[in-house]
Amino acid sequence: MKKISILGTGVMGTAIAMAYLKAGYPTTVWNRTKSKTLSLVNSGATLAETVEEAIQQGDIVISSLSTYEDLTDILLPIKSTWKAKVLVNISSGTSIQARDFGRIAIEKEIPYLDSAAMSGVKLVGHKDGFFLFSGAESEFINAKPSLEVLGNANYLGEDYGLTPLYDTALFTLAWGSLMGFYHAAALLNAESQDLSKLANIAKLQTAYLAILFKEHSNAISTGIYNNDDGNIDIHLSAMDHVKTISKESNVSDHFPSFIINILSKAKTMGHGDNGIASAIEVFKNNG
Amino acid sequence: MKKISILGTGVMGTAIAMAYLKAGYPTTVWNRTKSKTLSLVNSGATLAETVEEAIQQGDIVISSLSTYEDLTDILLPIKSTWKAKVLVNISSGTSIQARDFGRIAIEKEIPYLDSAAMSGVKLVGHKDGFFLFSGAESEFINAKPSLEVLGNANYLGEDYGLTPLYDTALFTLAWGSLMGFYHAAALLNAESQDLSKLANIAKLQTAYLAILFKEHSNAISTGIYNNDDGNIDIHLSAMDHVKTISKESNVSDHFPSFIINILSKAKTMGHGDNGIASAIEVFKNNG
Repeated sequence: MKKISILGTGVMGTAIAMAYLKAGYPTTVWNRTKSKTLSLVNSGATLAETVEEAIQQGDIVISSLSTYEDLTDILLPIKSTWKAKVLVNISSGTSIQARDFGRIAIEKEIPYLDSAAMSGVKLVGHKDGFFLFSGAESEFINAKPSLEVLGNANYLGEDYGLTPLYDTALFTLAWGSLMGFYHAAALLNAESQDLSKLANIAKLQTAYLAILFKEHSNAISTGIYNNDDGNIDIHLSAMDHVKTISKESNVSDHFPSFIINILSKAKTMGHGDNGIASAIEVFKNNG
Repeated sequence: MKKISILGTGVMGTAIAMAYLKAGYPTTVWNRTKSKTLSLVNSGATLAETVEEAIQQGDIVISSLSTYEDLTDILLPIKSTWKAKVLVNISSGTSIQARDFGRIAIEKEIPYLDSAAMSGVKLVGHKDGFFLFSGAESEFINAKPSLEVLGNANYLGEDYGLTPLYDTALFTLAWGSLMGFYHAAALLNAESQDLSKLANIAKLQTAYLAILFKEHSNAISTGIYNNDDGNIDIHLSAMDHVKTISKESNVSDHFPSFIINILSKAKTMGHGDNGIASAIEVFKNNG
């Protein structure tokens, strides 16, 4: 069983440390303000007095500091060897910051994985926890069984910048789904329907959506927009119908109007007869 | 094994008939234009010369005509008894049309289930096929093992209008997810990333989204918007960051700008400190 050290015991760092303590891993914690490690020490964590000590104690050193700068600041003075260790940084930032930090890690011979917690603090240590990692694949494979204590551990590739890139992409995707869900909930709410039933049905629908993601990613990659799922014109007309129904139900038409706006742009670009994945051309073109 | 009759052999009716033939069900087909049943008859379906004959042959009579009016027109002259039979109508329309047709069905003593195919033609007969039903629960339970030949069979409730209502709601939700996916794909495309990997990761993310749907449906029902998943202000600032990154990547900012617009309205309504599910108040208020 690998030994875990955690740098930074804010809300996320504490959740991570608790997950490892629950799973029985030897867990060391460090925080600039020592009092913030108290509850973890009471739960069985070892307190490191210095960053250096935390690094020496851990096979996997997880940083949950606020920024890449914070991490750089505490690591630069450190003289510890990182042999047979790996640094996992879970603080969020941009692809440029991740790549810049990656260069510092290489200079200092720190085996490094960039990471992001996509499912927030709440699901840390839960089977549906959802984490992204990028960096050397061998480091990921070696650490994976321990990283899976946190949740699903997904490897993106060597480029450190991939984690922030996917972080941004998946955040956007989540918001699209949430906005769709909120509009759907508003429609059902207007008819005094039980929204927990909507949540159950929406969960089942995600299996279908995952199939569309797969097929449409192929369509986008090849530029061949077959209309197996209907074309832009048909969906434009159906979304017009959603707009009418929304207004009749006294629900705002912001959401269907937005979709209509994008689909209309796709139509103007000549995609009316094409499959719906051609809507991506509107986003690609900065139009 | 129940006997299936299908009224209307367009693209959807043909897919339904093929699914039942493949599953070994005795299948009868009727279409106004007899030549359109030819391929199904060659695949083993029985041709009904009249609607009356199709109804007599089936325990479950599935209508896949274009509209409720078409179905009303062909059923009004029919004198067959519907005892121990059920009519399932899969043509799409509004809740008012479904309820109006429901009243006709009651007058004519036709046991009736309203239905919608949410996963299009392609997944009919596939385990991920996704169907909605409303009407008498006893009729649904009785027909369910046979309806599951088509895919997931989901019962919504007694009110016939529920199927069109959920159809509209889920169509909206699907488009939210697709728009989010297309924007995410545009961001990755700008960095020459493999989009099939995005589709795989996005599929994993749906498990997390389903949890949010569940929790946020509770928040919306109670009006208590806890900020476990961050508040409106935090997400507004994060989405501003997505907008900046999108512009820098030469990807259109339509999508993040739309989300920012909705979140800003929520903030103006006083929800800045509230959990993100409070964004639904913008949709509720027809603002």
